[in-house]
Amino acid sequence: MSLQSIKYTRGSLEILDQLLLPVQSKYLPVRGVEDGWKVINKMQVRGAPAIAIVGCLSLAVEIHPEEFDSKKSLRQELEGKLNYLVSARPTAVNMKMAADELLSLANDLTKDDNVDVAAMKQRFLNATEAMLKKDIADNRAIGAHGAKAILQLVAAAAGAPMAGPVRVLTHCNTGSLATAGYGTALGVVRQLSELGKLEHVYCTETRPYNQGARLTAYELVHEKFPATLVLDSMVAALLRAKNVAAVVVGADRVAANGDTANKIGTYQIAVVAKHHGVPFFVAAPLTSIDLHIPSGDHIIIEERPDREMTHVGEHRIAAPGINCWNPAFDVTPASLITGIITERGVFQPAQLKEAITKLLET
Amino acid sequence: MSLQSIKYTRGSLEILDQLLLPVQSKYLPVRGVEDGWKVINKMQVRGAPAIAIVGCLSLAVEIHPEEFDSKKSLRQELEGKLNYLVSARPTAVNMKMAADELLSLANDLTKDDNVDVAAMKQRFLNATEAMLKKDIADNRAIGAHGAKAILQLVAAAAGAPMAGPVRVLTHCNTGSLATAGYGTALGVVRQLSELGKLEHVYCTETRPYNQGARLTAYELVHEKFPATLVLDSMVAALLRAKNVAAVVVGADRVAANGDTANKIGTYQIAVVAKHHGVPFFVAAPLTSIDLHIPSGDHIIIEERPDREMTHVGEHRIAAPGINCWNPAFDVTPASLITGIITERGVFQPAQLKEAITKLLET
Repeated sequence: MSLQSIKYTRGSLEILDQLLLPVQSKYLPVRGVEDGWKVINKMQVRGAPAIAIVGCLSLAVEIHPEEFDSKKSLRQELEGKLNYLVSARPTAVNMKMAADELLSLANDLTKDDNVDVAAMKQRFLNATEAMLKKDIADNRAIGAHGAKAILQLVAAAAGAPMAGPVRVLTHCNTGSLATAGYGTALGVVRQLSELGKLEHVYCTETRPYNQGARLTAYELVHEKFPATLVLDSMVAALLRAKNVAAVVVGADRVAANGDTANKIGTYQIAVVAKHHGVPFFVAAPLTSIDLHIPSGDHIIIEERPDREMTHVGEHRIAAPGINCWNPAFDVTPASLITGIITERGVFQPAQLKEAITKLLET
Repeated sequence: MSLQSIKYTRGSLEILDQLLLPVQSKYLPVRGVEDGWKVINKMQVRGAPAIAIVGCLSLAVEIHPEEFDSKKSLRQELEGKLNYLVSARPTAVNMKMAADELLSLANDLTKDDNVDVAAMKQRFLNATEAMLKKDIADNRAIGAHGAKAILQLVAAAAGAPMAGPVRVLTHCNTGSLATAGYGTALGVVRQLSELGKLEHVYCTETRPYNQGARLTAYELVHEKFPATLVLDSMVAALLRAKNVAAVVVGADRVAANGDTANKIGTYQIAVVAKHHGVPFFVAAPLTSIDLHIPSGDHIIIEERPDREMTHVGEHRIAAPGINCWNPAFDVTPASLITGIITERGVFQPAQLKEAITKLLET
């Protein structure tokens, strides 16, 4: 069974503290939205989909034992607490979208005279819990579409009817630890493995939080995949030396034109992949695609504290007194992206807006 | 005064232990070639020029108190111990070249009937000590040529008679801590500063040994240069955002065609610089240029232990059980290099072989 990063039953939520991995596997109880805000803000839970799910489930846990006099007071509490949760990591659009969706549901239920306050709470809890299930189903679909796209591209390049096992590279962590359970980019890797088509997977360390070395490597070892860790500085040398068939990364936010904000270093890998003629895929659920943002220029990049760069735990690794530049994300322009893998298929960036608009209509 | 990484007086050698920086500034006594081999192999001293100088000075310290019955026995000891020192870091060509030069001197002196054994030892010690002085003089010349080349390029691009202060990026450590005292790529930065033309210098962390964060940042803080540390994954985002005028890096070995072996990550930075139209310079003394190597394909890349990647000190930062790929260097093809800065001028890679051959003849 793949790693469980979120343990939820109604009224109870625990998350695997990712800051302690890989040395310690410790589950933290999340008793309500304050805990939820903290584990998101401190990056004890991370990955855009997991942030949204843990945020919403923390609210489900909080309201579960509460009694409300009126639908209005329930709605007010939900609105206030959803907004509070969104503020924990402003770049993660999924939490905002989930909050908007849940708030819209709360508004509809408030207006619906056939629903009393108890039923409204039930329906709200059900909706929140459905997000958990949907995430896993979506990731499996992303994995299947992505694996197929990579294998088709490799077969076409070789002029062969079918591709042999392939080597792929991924960045940061997009697996069970970043989602509710299967992974986005790592879901593609899982699917390649299930098809017997994974020759090797390389993962980058992903400084400064080392999500690749700590989390992705932890998952790859857990799954017994043939896997190798490389440093962020080694991608160009790797693509030159090791016949990597494709790069597949996740996304924190995809703009309407396909520009993609993702963990710092993603843009650099895309540049390097282009130079070496290696296809570069972004794997992201539709919830990470924000058609209201026309392009990457409109994405605000969160800058994080110097200490993430200057220390590992309590151990200082940089010279005292040096300034740091610590953007958490960068933006990969659509022109460097071969395809965006979603649960509904793989799209070229230029087709993205039209395709998604159609999908959302149907 | 800039940082002293090598303290030498005849009969006594100490080096600043670079593995303890920036937390601790501790000098290690080097009492002979065994100590010399160890500090080179354990990377307590590093940087191609510093390795050669510390290696040779460790031999000078070893033979200083010894008495030899014959020139032949002195020559034999020198040959054996120079070969031993070369084996400490096989990729560092400077140690090999210095060893060849000193051995050639020892052979000449052995044959010269006007020189007795005591005079031979004196001449050998003088030659070794001259390397220390020459290195600093060469680095100052590299700095002057490099700063001029960058400023000319910037002025030409702007169509202006003179360039204003510039922002530059460097990788790894090539400063006082890598050389006998001024630095190669960092010598160029020092020279820009002396000319009042350094707006800002960015240095990369340089995993896995963090020479940038520990050593370059330490030197930049020491010199009070306007400086910022970035992670290895941030170079593309930096070049896109911060109007960097040039990249300047060092070299462990330059082949006849200009292909350059340098710290892992250099190749990736060169690819990224090309993509952004940023000039990419290699700063290296002539001793790092090996005309016997036709191209980078003939350079053997040292692979180092996994532990460098999986641990910081005693602290594990990667998942247990994960494989690592840890090449110490990569090769940047000449086609990505704007110019190679030497103590005798700046050469385009295509001109390098002819120019150096001429210089060596005169």
